[in-house]
Formats: sequence, structure tokens, C-alpha cells
Amino acid sequence: MNPVELILRKRNGLPLLREEMQAFVSAYLNDAIPEYQMAAMLMAIFFRDMTPEEVQALTGVYIESGERISFPADWLTVDKHSTGGVGDKLSLLVAPLAAACGCRVPMISGRGLGHTGGTLYKLESVPGFRTGFSSADFKRLVEDVGMAIVAQSERLVPADKRIYALRDVTGTVESLPLITASIMSKKIAEGAANLIIDLKVGAGAFMKDMPTAQRLAGLLIAAGEAFGQRVGVVYSNMNAPLGDWVGNAVEVREAIRFLYGHVTSGDQFELTRLLWRDMLGLCGKSAEATDERFEALLRGEALEVFRRFVAAQGGDARVVDNPNLLTAAPIEIPIPAPDNGWVQAIDSQGIGYALIDVGAGRRRLDDALDYAAGAHLPHKIGAEVRRGDLLGRLYCSHRAKGEAAAQRIAGCYKLSSEKVVPQPVVLGRLNRWC
Amino acid sequence: MNPVELILRKRNGLPLLREEMQAFVSAYLNDAIPEYQMAAMLMAIFFRDMTPEEVQALTGVYIESGERISFPADWLTVDKHSTGGVGDKLSLLVAPLAAACGCRVPMISGRGLGHTGGTLYKLESVPGFRTGFSSADFKRLVEDVGMAIVAQSERLVPADKRIYALRDVTGTVESLPLITASIMSKKIAEGAANLIIDLKVGAGAFMKDMPTAQRLAGLLIAAGEAFGQRVGVVYSNMNAPLGDWVGNAVEVREAIRFLYGHVTSGDQFELTRLLWRDMLGLCGKSAEATDERFEALLRGEALEVFRRFVAAQGGDARVVDNPNLLTAAPIEIPIPAPDNGWVQAIDSQGIGYALIDVGAGRRRLDDALDYAAGAHLPHKIGAEVRRGDLLGRLYCSHRAKGEAAAQRIAGCYKLSSEKVVPQPVVLGRLNRWC
Repeated sequence: MNPVELILRKRNGLPLLREEMQAFVSAYLNDAIPEYQMAAMLMAIFFRDMTPEEVQALTGVYIESGERISFPADWLTVDKHSTGGVGDKLSLLVAPLAAACGCRVPMISGRGLGHTGGTLYKLESVPGFRTGFSSADFKRLVEDVGMAIVAQSERLVPADKRIYALRDVTGTVESLPLITASIMSKKIAEGAANLIIDLKVGAGAFMKDMPTAQRLAGLLIAAGEAFGQRVGVVYSNMNAPLGDWVGNAVEVREAIRFLYGHVTSGDQFELTRLLWRDMLGLCGKSAEATDERFEALLRGEALEVFRRFVAAQGGDARVVDNPNLLTAAPIEIPIPAPDNGWVQAIDSQGIGYALIDVGAGRRRLDDALDYAAGAHLPHKIGAEVRRGDLLGRLYCSHRAKGEAAAQRIAGCYKLSSEKVVPQPVVLGRLNRWC
Repeated sequence: MNPVELILRKRNGLPLLREEMQAFVSAYLNDAIPEYQMAAMLMAIFFRDMTPEEVQALTGVYIESGERISFPADWLTVDKHSTGGVGDKLSLLVAPLAAACGCRVPMISGRGLGHTGGTLYKLESVPGFRTGFSSADFKRLVEDVGMAIVAQSERLVPADKRIYALRDVTGTVESLPLITASIMSKKIAEGAANLIIDLKVGAGAFMKDMPTAQRLAGLLIAAGEAFGQRVGVVYSNMNAPLGDWVGNAVEVREAIRFLYGHVTSGDQFELTRLLWRDMLGLCGKSAEATDERFEALLRGEALEVFRRFVAAQGGDARVVDNPNLLTAAPIEIPIPAPDNGWVQAIDSQGIGYALIDVGAGRRRLDDALDYAAGAHLPHKIGAEVRRGDLLGRLYCSHRAKGEAAAQRIAGCYKLSSEKVVPQPVVLGRLNRWC
């Protein structure tokens, strides 16, 4: 295998064979192919794209680079994966909701990516909570609790781990084939037989438009099915932050309140219910997935699973009894509306980056994280505000940084002098199983 | 300067500013930007191309990475650059021919590139010949002899030296903006006020078609003129090896015989005369550049310059008196025509690679070079051959490798049963100076 020849083949628009990708990736992992040749290959893939067959082959190559977890065939294993949004704490909701119905949810999750929050950062705001487990312990957690949310171990899909880090620093993140192989290799290797993908679309998502999202959905489903996984996609709106809170501790607090049944409508409620319904549907439990059952679950059953989950992973379960233990950062900065009007557009990506500036996320691995930093941002597109009303409130630990971030967030809201129609949170479904 | 942001800008089709390229290239040369980010940038440039302004800016950034040689303004300095062909020994001809007319030819040349031969490899087949000189010695050679052909020093355009090596291993060689910056930075930094580019087009060239060649010509000329250099382009046919011989020692031998006046027609004769005419034209000596003067130069004047040039650079000048001292390799393998017919097409690139297999060139820097290996291949497109006639002869030092190469060369000739029209060697000129 001549690496330059393979780079040239892809660069010139010819497809790569499975064994060629296998050889290229293995040589890279063994340091026989240097970073710069992989970087050139990734950029060539960005421009030349891949056929669905190539994407499936690459996914397989990724999977085979590490260990593959498996669960007993009679377990109803199902995972939910989000392509990343702002205020997206839905993993903390759907996992206990599905587990409370007898599904088992083996979830390997990530830290923040770009402007989006990461489920692991959120959970790590709970004192004592651990996300690093061996595969054996991960399986035991899923068996005992019905769910687990852990970090990717070094041994699971090491190819993705290393190539993802390189993509991040070479401007090759936004490639649908590479995104597909990255997501699906982990989701297949983690052993879930069923998978619902919450494919975010809009200003606050990585996918800005439906045609791109639909192409990605097709690639994700085909890759999953090539490895025997049943995959359904929900397209959801990411033109506004999801729910009312964005941050880490404040999102966990909001999730716990949700599981107490304090929320009965809104974008987060609707999307959570649909994702839960489809997770059950993939597991052959459509009959159980009624609205009534959903509401019943929020009268204690799901919360109980969540409590056991927090405790099993070393977290302080008192936060479940008293979510106010998860306090927001001490400095509160109001974000007033500059004018009368209706919210016409929200730059959720800008909000995400503003919150990173106060420590709610990281730009680099060595940036300090402030788990208590966050914002209360309840307004959605179509909401009416008057000059001086609060668009929201920012919570932080350093006033100067907070003032700047609050100003940046205020600038993310575009107001219209004419009434604006609210947007639906669910944009569509692609699911041939339920 | 954030390197990823600049990669993304170029990847997304936005032009880069001069100071951004300056910062990116300097950081790369200082090892503050790793190879993989430069590799990603190069591949993004390959796909997104560059505006002429960007190309000129990049050329400037390259030049400023090292020293710039200058000659007295009243010297008629002129160089000739070939974009690379098979059998192309014209530097050895036009340099002494122009120098014999009072021009000064400061030529910094290369070793072989891909399937094409390199002038330095050819010259190094002369016992004792040296190509490594300091800038001061280079200038002295040009002053004393009227010409010099040397290797690029470490101090001349180090940016190109390093980036070229990276392009070579990342599949990013064939990018017109990168080719332009690479060629022109060296040609401007070496100090020649005038430059004729022999832009090869065809199966044996890097440019396979005229539209690509014309775009490159425009970029080369604009880059030169941005730095005060007068540039003319000659488009020449590279669908057949140039002249009768391909190799190293055998090409020098052919060049010396040419300078003795043994050749009076043919592709090599015509192209050499045109390049010489345009070199003189750029120097304001059009009146002198007649066919009669050209033929007169081949009665001893040019050969005398060549003799002094070889001696001044440490070479054994006896080869000039007796070119047969430059012997071909001992094993001669005939290459018979498989059929009657007319030569319709010649895969000159394939011939170049076949000769590399017998040591006439290198694939890797540590490959052994056999200066005496080569081939006599006098047939051009349109030539009539009969079954059993020789297409040519291969000369090598290892019979088994030679047999394989000879077979490969035979396969590079496509014969037609119908008469084929010969092709002109000169395809056009782009020159606003003469």
C-alpha cells in the first residue's frame, strides 16, 4: 500500500476499497503513516465525499480498531444519540424514561464539541459522579440499573479517537462521511441493538439545513444497518436552545425537575416524548409508548431510575432529592430585551460560544471549566418581549467576563416588530421500524 | 492567527490575505504549525485554488523566507525553466547558446521530479562535476563563464524546499497556484531579470492539456511581473521524448554532439532555437537572434562556453572534446516494433518510469542512480516502422530489470495501421516582450 497513491485516488474522485482503508487506518494507528498524510486524506475526503459503501467500510474499519461490546440478544438494548445542540440535556431524560420501561440503555457519551454542550460535562457537575468505567463495569451498570452513561474508553474505537482529534485541528470536522463513521462506529461498538438519532438542524446545530441533514440521516441509517443495528432518525429544530437552561449543573437541575414532572409542555417535553416513544418502538414496545404512560413515568418511576443511575456511577444522589443543591454560579447578570418585539431568530451557536467564554465549556482541553456557569434563556422563536423585559439571565463567577458574555448573548436575539410564528421542535422522522 | 481558522477559510473558498499566508508559512517554518495543518491547507488549496493575487502574495512569502540573489542591473541576465519532460536536455543547450551571445544565465536547477529527468542528475554524470555552490560562488561563475547551473542552496527559498517535500508526500503536487509559487519564487530569488518558461504539454508532461497549460502560463507571468521579472512562455509538445536519447550520461553526450553542430533539424533543434531566440529577445537582442547566427553558434562558440562551464564547475572537460567518454551502460537490449505501422501515440510518462526502474532516475532519495542507464528512442509520432524494426535500444547494468523495462517501453508505443500525421514540437508562445 502506497499512502500517496491512495490520497491521490481519493483526491481524484475515485472510491477507496475496504482493504485500502483498512491498511491506511492501521498504518496510521501504528505510526507507519504520519499525521500529515492522514490530514491530506481527510481533507480530500471532505472535498470528494464518499459513497455509502465507502462510509460503511470506513465504519467497519473504525470498529475493528478496538474492542466491541456485546449484550445478551434478549436484552432490549437501545441508545439515543444527539448530533449536538445547545441546552440539549435529553440524554438525561430519555435514558431513565426508556430504562423505566424495561429497555436497557448503554450510552457512551462525549464531552462538549464546538459550541455544543457535552453530556459528560453536565453529569460531572454532580459531586462524585464518575464516567470512566471498564467495559465489564459498563455492562454491569447496564444490567443492574438499566442504563449507564460513560466516556469512551481507550479501547473502544481508538481509530475514531485519534482521527477525531486530528480532524478537529485540520478543519475537517464537517464531512458527512467522516461524521457518520465517527458516530456509528462508537454506537455499534458499544453494543446497543437499537439506536435513535436526534439529528439537530438549524442555526445552533452542525447541520444548518434539511437537505444536508437528510443526506447524513441516510448515511447513518445505512451504516447502522450494515452492522445489524436498527436505526431511526428524528430531525429536530435547533434554532433555539432546548428547554430553559443552558450550562452544566443548571441543565442537570432542569433535567431532575423534568423527571419530577414539573414540565408538561414545550419543546423539551415534546421532543423527549417522541425520542422515548421511538426508543420503545425500536424495542418492539410501541403499544406501551402512549402519552398517558409517558406522563405516568414522570410521577416517580423515571426519577427512581435516575437516582439509582447517579448513585451507581458514584454521584451524590442527594441532588436527586434536592436539585437545588445544583446551584448556578453566584454572579447573576440580567440580559434585557433592547426593544419591543417578537423573537425572530436566535443565534444559538453564538450563545453556546458566549457560555464557553464564562467557563461552561472548553475551547481547548486545558481550559478551566466552571460547572456552575450557565444561563436561563426561556424564550423561543415567536415569543413576545417588551423593552426592558429580560431575555434571560447569565450566571457566572467573573463579572467582567460575564458582562461581555451577556452582551454577546443579547446580540444573539433578533427581534421583529411584526408578530413571528413559533417553530415546531420536531421537523420530521426517518424510521422504518416503528 | 488561528491556523484552523485559516484552513477553514480556504476550505470554504474564501481568499487568504498576504499577511495571513505570511503568518501561516513563518509559523510552519518555525515549527509552530505542525506538518498536518500545512498538509490540510495544501489539500484545501488544491481543491479551492487561488486568485492570481493570492498566488503573487504566496510567491512573495516564499521569496522572503530566504535570501535573494541580485546581479548588476546592466547584466543581461536570463534564465530558461522547463516544467519537466522526458529527454529534455535543453538547459544544456540554450544556456551556452545564450551566454555565447553576451547574455548571462544564472540557472538554479532541480533533480528529477516524478517521471521526468533532472538537469542536475544529467550534469552529475560528468566526472567531478559539482552543483553545490554558495551564492557568492554562483555569482562569480555567472560573471566568469556567462552561465552556471547549480542546485538550490539551503538559504534560497527554504519555504518552497520544505513545502515542496510535504506536497510530494501528501498528493498536493498538481496544484497550479502551488506550482506557480514554487517555480517563480526560485526563479525570482535567483536574480535573473528575464525568464523563458518552456511549458511542456502532453502525455509526458505534468500539464496534459492546453487549457491547463494556458492557465498556468498566466499565473507564472503575472507572478514574475509582480516582482519585476520579464517572463515569456513557450508551449511545447511533450507527447514524445525530446531528441533521440533519454537518460543522464547519454543525454549530456547528445547535448555535446548538438553543440558540435551535428544536429540540424528535428524537435530538439527547433525548440532549442526558439527558446534561444526568445531568451535573446527578452534581453533586447532580437536583431541578433537569426537562424544564421544560431547555426554559426553551433560551429564552436557555444561549445566553448559549455567547455568553460564544465571546467568551472569542477567537471572533467575532456568529455567535451570526446563525448564518447560518456558511455551508455554495457547491456544493450533492443526494443523491436511488434508490428508494421505508424507511431500514433507514445506514453512518454511510462517511458520515464521504465527508465527509473533501471536506475536513470529515483523514486526515493535513497534509490541508487545509474548515470549510464538510458535509452535511444529516436521515433516520434508519425514515424513509420515495420515489424522487427527497432523502436529503440535500452542500455542498462542489470539484464533482468532491463528486459522488463524494455518490454514496458515497447508497450508505451501505440501503432496505427493508417498513416499518422507528425506533430509540431512548438505549440505556441505567450510573450509580450519580443
